[in-house]
Amino acid sequence: MSVSYRLSEIAAKFGGRILGNAEVRISQIATLEAAQPDQISFLTNSKYRAQLAGTRAGAVILAKADADATGLPRIVSENPYAYFARVSALLNPLPEARPGVHPSAVIGAGAKVDATASIAATAVIGEGATIGAHSVIGEGCCIGANVVIGCRARLYPRVVVYHGCVIGDNLIAHSGVVIGADGFGIAMDQGSWVKIPQIGRVVIGNDVEIGANTTIDRGALADTVIEDDVKLDNQIQVAHNVHIGAHTAIAGCVGIAGSTTIGSYCRIGGSAGILGHLQIGDNVEIAAFTLVGKSIREAGSYTGIFPFAKTEDWRRNAVHLRHLDALAKRIKTLEQELESLKRIA
Amino acid sequence: MSVSYRLSEIAAKFGGRILGNAEVRISQIATLEAAQPDQISFLTNSKYRAQLAGTRAGAVILAKADADATGLPRIVSENPYAYFARVSALLNPLPEARPGVHPSAVIGAGAKVDATASIAATAVIGEGATIGAHSVIGEGCCIGANVVIGCRARLYPRVVVYHGCVIGDNLIAHSGVVIGADGFGIAMDQGSWVKIPQIGRVVIGNDVEIGANTTIDRGALADTVIEDDVKLDNQIQVAHNVHIGAHTAIAGCVGIAGSTTIGSYCRIGGSAGILGHLQIGDNVEIAAFTLVGKSIREAGSYTGIFPFAKTEDWRRNAVHLRHLDALAKRIKTLEQELESLKRIA
Amino acid sequence: MSVSYRLSEIAAKFGGRILGNAEVRISQIATLEAAQPDQISFLTNSKYRAQLAGTRAGAVILAKADADATGLPRIVSENPYAYFARVSALLNPLPEARPGVHPSAVIGAGAKVDATASIAATAVIGEGATIGAHSVIGEGCCIGANVVIGCRARLYPRVVVYHGCVIGDNLIAHSGVVIGADGFGIAMDQGSWVKIPQIGRVVIGNDVEIGANTTIDRGALADTVIEDDVKLDNQIQVAHNVHIGAHTAIAGCVGIAGSTTIGSYCRIGGSAGILGHLQIGDNVEIAAFTLVGKSIREAGSYTGIFPFAKTEDWRRNAVHLRHLDALAKRIKTLEQELESLKRIA
Repeated sequence: MSVSYRLSEIAAKFGGRILGNAEVRISQIATLEAAQPDQISFLTNSKYRAQLAGTRAGAVILAKADADATGLPRIVSENPYAYFARVSALLNPLPEARPGVHPSAVIGAGAKVDATASIAATAVIGEGATIGAHSVIGEGCCIGANVVIGCRARLYPRVVVYHGCVIGDNLIAHSGVVIGADGFGIAMDQGSWVKIPQIGRVVIGNDVEIGANTTIDRGALADTVIEDDVKLDNQIQVAHNVHIGAHTAIAGCVGIAGSTTIGSYCRIGGSAGILGHLQIGDNVEIAAFTLVGKSIREAGSYTGIFPFAKTEDWRRNAVHLRHLDALAKRIKTLEQELESLKRIA
Repeated sequence: MSVSYRLSEIAAKFGGRILGNAEVRISQIATLEAAQPDQISFLTNSKYRAQLAGTRAGAVILAKADADATGLPRIVSENPYAYFARVSALLNPLPEARPGVHPSAVIGAGAKVDATASIAATAVIGEGATIGAHSVIGEGCCIGANVVIGCRARLYPRVVVYHGCVIGDNLIAHSGVVIGADGFGIAMDQGSWVKIPQIGRVVIGNDVEIGANTTIDRGALADTVIEDDVKLDNQIQVAHNVHIGAHTAIAGCVGIAGSTTIGSYCRIGGSAGILGHLQIGDNVEIAAFTLVGKSIREAGSYTGIFPFAKTEDWRRNAVHLRHLDALAKRIKTLEQELESLKRIA
Repeated sequence: MSVSYRLSEIAAKFGGRILGNAEVRISQIATLEAAQPDQISFLTNSKYRAQLAGTRAGAVILAKADADATGLPRIVSENPYAYFARVSALLNPLPEARPGVHPSAVIGAGAKVDATASIAATAVIGEGATIGAHSVIGEGCCIGANVVIGCRARLYPRVVVYHGCVIGDNLIAHSGVVIGADGFGIAMDQGSWVKIPQIGRVVIGNDVEIGANTTIDRGALADTVIEDDVKLDNQIQVAHNVHIGAHTAIAGCVGIAGSTTIGSYCRIGGSAGILGHLQIGDNVEIAAFTLVGKSIREAGSYTGIFPFAKTEDWRRNAVHLRHLDALAKRIKTLEQELESLKRIA
């Protein structure tokens, strides 16, 4: 069952320079602490160099700066962290899904399911939907009418894609993801709410990953857009008409309100929030738990966290937050009075 | 496939005064920017009047105050936003679901499914459950034993309703919604948790919409209650025995803890939180990201957001939050000493 | 249908001392306010003693300190709240699930389903999975390949457990729970993200309850671990390689970032967050809405909430948060100048 590779074979695939015995065989990847002699480990930060001393790993991936820090067989890479990711994927291939449609799956009229695609038990493919080559639609997934899903998608069990949404190649969507539900559009009229139909779609580029129970709403009029290589963690809420730029990564539990545009290469920390109708530029980093209430045009790092403390300390300090304006005025008064006194003195 | 209406037909349905050519045909609705000549657009805020100049729309919905701001055929309405919503619904009717039970659906003993209702593929209807006229139960939905769902409900795929819950007419529930799971009730005893059975139900009125992956827990003893015309966005958590008053609208990712009562016509911003056992009155507005830790009896707007800033600025300022009490005391001391000095001078 | 018990039978099961008529029959449990003569109620806090006066309950569970506060038949318990929980469970037994596999369920090759287990309609059990005695796998659940689930588990509809995860006895998992989805592991390389395979598992102990739509990610290399008697509310996000100690209880919407370790007997309030790679000791309490950004080694209560206020008050005060450092410097200056003046005076 288990695969193994010589260091030389790994380097032939992924590059890097081998130091030490290139013939050592590797069958798994592990931390420096846990690695066994048939396993390869990795050092991505010189700060942890001391851990090299005690490792039982058979080989190590590391940066040039750390190349001499161990005598173990090693691969020197410019980006040991990405190298580790690639070696791990090599050693841990996803189980192949069997092409074909499970007898308990339900395929709508006019749906086009590629012969190499796999439709698992109890999945439902809507009328006129298209499932591309080598895509895997997991158990209990519901793909709406006229949805288009590209090649090599992997939808884990119980993903829902509403009608008309369009998804590129290589999508990974974890269980519980909902793509294309109605955005939250309501208009108050004479004391009751009138629903605003959500007639846009969700359009997703290539190489996107979406974490478990994340929701991406369809647009109200135009589309909600997720560009290429966007990575979304679990339980994120993306409201209608949001636009997320390529290569942006968003951690779990973030909420993004309607019609906000986020640039490329942004990184957004867990449980952060972004209000609606804002523009966030490229290369913006937002700390966890931060609410962004205004547009951010300048690249850089932004934070809005209330620091935690022992509850009794917090209570003693937080009470003054309701009087900051008064405190500021008292300081102003003190300054003026002191100025008068100094003139007298 | 596509429907179209004359302005005169639209006004006959929804009221409003037509100015200009009442015979222009409209087949879709769009923003002022995107609208084409066979489409109608809308102006809901005089602030955006300038956009009227460039629009290619065939007609516009607008308020009396803006009626003269364009020469295009137009409908003057007292509430252009709600008017837009109604026109959009007219032009974008939901696809009709076919009445009947899909062969892959599972219907429990004693369940009463109206002949006009539609039970989609792989849905499961529990024993003794009732599904009202023209209701649509989507793919993979699980309706528990003895649940009652009224007329014209639309449950998108993979909604779960636990046993015994009662739902009025016109429910819209998006994918991943869970209604009636156990509330979080546990009692510590001799170092371990004892589960408190959750024997209440969830009772939902008419005209309620619930967003994707929102959860509403059943009551511990009495019921959790959602009144008429409540609108819930995605990923909201409503704990056991919460009571939400009619016409209240709640944005995504809000958490409401157990036994809290929220009044009518409240509006709660995204990712806000409300602690348990509180009373929130009618017409209360709570800003996004605000934690409400005390009851609010007075209508009005409430906020508790920590303002974000560039991380280096935030760091320089936030450090003082741990010393606010000391700062306040230093101000007090300064005031006293200055007073003494003044008396001397 | 309805069960009923004499007080004497209840005390024989759960202990406690009976005062008054031990033969009164009880068929349900209710609050002091709502209880009827055939129902038992409970007083868990002396603060609410006054409510005893008006209750119509047939009997009451209370603490020794309150034993004389009513003449009703009563059970005196050292822990009335836990006693209430046990009596409620006695009076409200879960409906028995029928052992066996529903014809619409799909059982993978080599799966071992105990003869006493119940596999509901449309559930899918993966190849090589093990389902223990008396476990109930609800409608639409998807259990991955080689998963092990212990005895007496109750999975409500639409729970997903990814391949290889291991779960002890007595699990309760509510609808929409996702156990074992990939953690959020990505490495940037030459402008694009490389996925880090998530090859660890989720390992869950005995007596764990998991609320609706909560997600627990599998480990990147090692496992994500949930120890015995951990109680998780709805919509919690547990990232990869988190370790949660025994008897810890976490309220809804909490997010826990990767590789953080939480001790035993912790209590974490709703919508709180804990950053990654932190150590939280035993018996730590974290308030709702608090972000924990540093390790906490000392038991106790911790808070980081920004207090809410009327929006106009908040605005007037919050503006100074951007100038706290300047305010602190002005105080320092005032102190120095006053000191000089005092020396002159």
